Amino acid sequence: MREVAIMGIGQTPVDEHWDKSLRDLAGEAIFNALNDAGRHTVEGLYVGNMMSGILSKQENLGALIADWVGLKGIEAAKVEAACGSGAAALRMGLMAVGSGLLNCVVVVGVEKMTDGLPNETTAALATASDADYEAAQGVSFVAINALVMRRYMYEYGWKHVDFAPFSINAHLNAVHNPYARLQEAITEKDYVKARMVADPINLLDASPTGDGAAAVVLVPAETIRYNKKPVIQIIGSGAATDSVAVHARHEPTWLSAAEKSALNAYSQAGLGPRDIDLFEVHDAFSIMSVLSLEACGYADRGQGPRLGLDGEINLRGRIPITTMGGLKARGHPVGATGIYQIVEVVQQLRDEAGENQVDGAKIGMAQNIGGSGSAIITHILKAF
Amino acid sequence: MREVAIMGIGQTPVDEHWDKSLRDLAGEAIFNALNDAGRHTVEGLYVGNMMSGILSKQENLGALIADWVGLKGIEAAKVEAACGSGAAALRMGLMAVGSGLLNCVVVVGVEKMTDGLPNETTAALATASDADYEAAQGVSFVAINALVMRRYMYEYGWKHVDFAPFSINAHLNAVHNPYARLQEAITEKDYVKARMVADPINLLDASPTGDGAAAVVLVPAETIRYNKKPVIQIIGSGAATDSVAVHARHEPTWLSAAEKSALNAYSQAGLGPRDIDLFEVHDAFSIMSVLSLEACGYADRGQGPRLGLDGEINLRGRIPITTMGGLKARGHPVGATGIYQIVEVVQQLRDEAGENQVDGAKIGMAQNIGGSGSAIITHILKAF
Repeated sequence: MREVAIMGIGQTPVDEHWDKSLRDLAGEAIFNALNDAGRHTVEGLYVGNMMSGILSKQENLGALIADWVGLKGIEAAKVEAACGSGAAALRMGLMAVGSGLLNCVVVVGVEKMTDGLPNETTAALATASDADYEAAQGVSFVAINALVMRRYMYEYGWKHVDFAPFSINAHLNAVHNPYARLQEAITEKDYVKARMVADPINLLDASPTGDGAAAVVLVPAETIRYNKKPVIQIIGSGAATDSVAVHARHEPTWLSAAEKSALNAYSQAGLGPRDIDLFEVHDAFSIMSVLSLEACGYADRGQGPRLGLDGEINLRGRIPITTMGGLKARGHPVGATGIYQIVEVVQQLRDEAGENQVDGAKIGMAQNIGGSGSAIITHILKAF
Repeated sequence: MREVAIMGIGQTPVDEHWDKSLRDLAGEAIFNALNDAGRHTVEGLYVGNMMSGILSKQENLGALIADWVGLKGIEAAKVEAACGSGAAALRMGLMAVGSGLLNCVVVVGVEKMTDGLPNETTAALATASDADYEAAQGVSFVAINALVMRRYMYEYGWKHVDFAPFSINAHLNAVHNPYARLQEAITEKDYVKARMVADPINLLDASPTGDGAAAVVLVPAETIRYNKKPVIQIIGSGAATDSVAVHARHEPTWLSAAEKSALNAYSQAGLGPRDIDLFEVHDAFSIMSVLSLEACGYADRGQGPRLGLDGEINLRGRIPITTMGGLKARGHPVGATGIYQIVEVVQQLRDEAGENQVDGAKIGMAQNIGGSGSAIITHILKAF
């Protein structure tokens, strides 16, 4: 496969964008990415999105968005893997350019969640779980994650407050990210006292929904090798799945798909967990950060919370995570999230992360999780 | 890019499968394809589907179906391009194997339309049109196609009955296809007298909905080159888009995306319309067969109906189309259709089409259309 690099990045703030439609948001991110890349056109467009059919009564997003950004005619399609849709679309773009079929593509992740009423959004999110065996029982998506968190706490003896550092770190990093939905720091006291959503997940364990879009422009690495900007190359990409229904898994507190996809990405990149300078984890819920870190080799089984308590996840720690706020504070516009993560890794590797810069970051990883761990895609990027 | 071949095919009958769920159907097609390929496993699964979120309250189909068929852990994602979802998923599979990232994948198209009430299905189909500028006006998907057909008849002076040969041919070919939903021949009298749906489209201009799934197994061509079965290789693949809203197109009676995607596929294959032995067109409505044939170079602009009237589209004609019944009579389970077309081309190229065999077929084409011509993917297959 040809080596593939990210030539441009773009994003919109994550917010309740009442004045912007699905295509407005996607267009804004794409124009930002094209401007950043210094290009006017691409040959293909892949859209990461999960819920537009239900919430905006709109499918066929590929053609719709291609036309909207003035690229009528180019190849376009939507890719869906629940909350992992963004990274799944990136992987399609990677294959399109890597295979040699196309020479330049844009991948946009977009979600317009305020097109639905709150109960509609909850129902739409539940389509990421098993409709026949989970959602049909009335269990919401957050409730499924709450069951996982409770089981994890029971098995390994952690208390709820032990998860606080993950939310505190994410919120702190969001303060200086102008695209973040919640640009405000929180304290451990805030965390402990937050309103309960689905016990033990409270409001400060859970990422906020939101409208947003993020985009990246992909080209063969060789075409930008002699530019002045650092070349950000995708050196590892791995995707894996697990049972959608959590009860059908051998071990509900272990993300086997995260492990598999990370191992694939490590192996492709020819490196391991110690070589990663920062890691954008999929902290839809604080328990997910913990499980992701364990599955990717940063902590022993059941010991993930230790990384937070020891300050290892901070910008100056051993493995900085959620460096621009993560899902928790930047916000989680579902199908867009995987591309926001990639945009943020690129910001770090380009030394453009401002106050949140991880010193000397050369290699970054992003892991996007669909469902409660059922569709997981890991990417490793490196600055050359 | 590596050369990619189709090693196995599988399908379910198109029908109202009240006793089978989305995953049952997909699984049946995948098992059939794996059996046909003589394989037990694959490395990736791509699912073509449009409406599962709305009709079955289920997204995350990649992980769901991978688990169901005993392949928990493999990479999987859903690809959506409205009614073109099947071929869009095939193109993703092609890139996955062609790029060298994966060595064997299965692509399944599946749609479970009876999970929704009829009015829900109509609303779900309308998500293929422009939600803000078409569907919001109350115009259904069939009504949009009716406007195109009426305009075409007005511009070029054709009468409704002139389109009859397309439906008659499709129904005749479905008689011997055990997977077809409507295995019955029709006469011109039936066609003329059929109940009106959206003037000028009547019941015999329109393809029936249905539940169904079809699957293909893709591998690098070199791995099966020395088998006894003919090697069916994908020698051309092209995808293109147009405005989703028909009124936004320069010329509503010309499928520019069909032309672009066909030219790309022809060019990649190094051949032209005359080299194609059979052509599975996307006859969701009879007008679409006509527009597709014109855009792919088989008739002058406005002269497509002539091909039907002159018998050129029959099994012994110049360009046989809908050889196993087409969307019109085999049925149109939306996201599955693009894969049914590919399965049928493979049947022809393997000389396994029985009563419907096109003599000496070596090269076949399939064109899958999303929206009213907004997302179009063309594939050319050749038997070696």
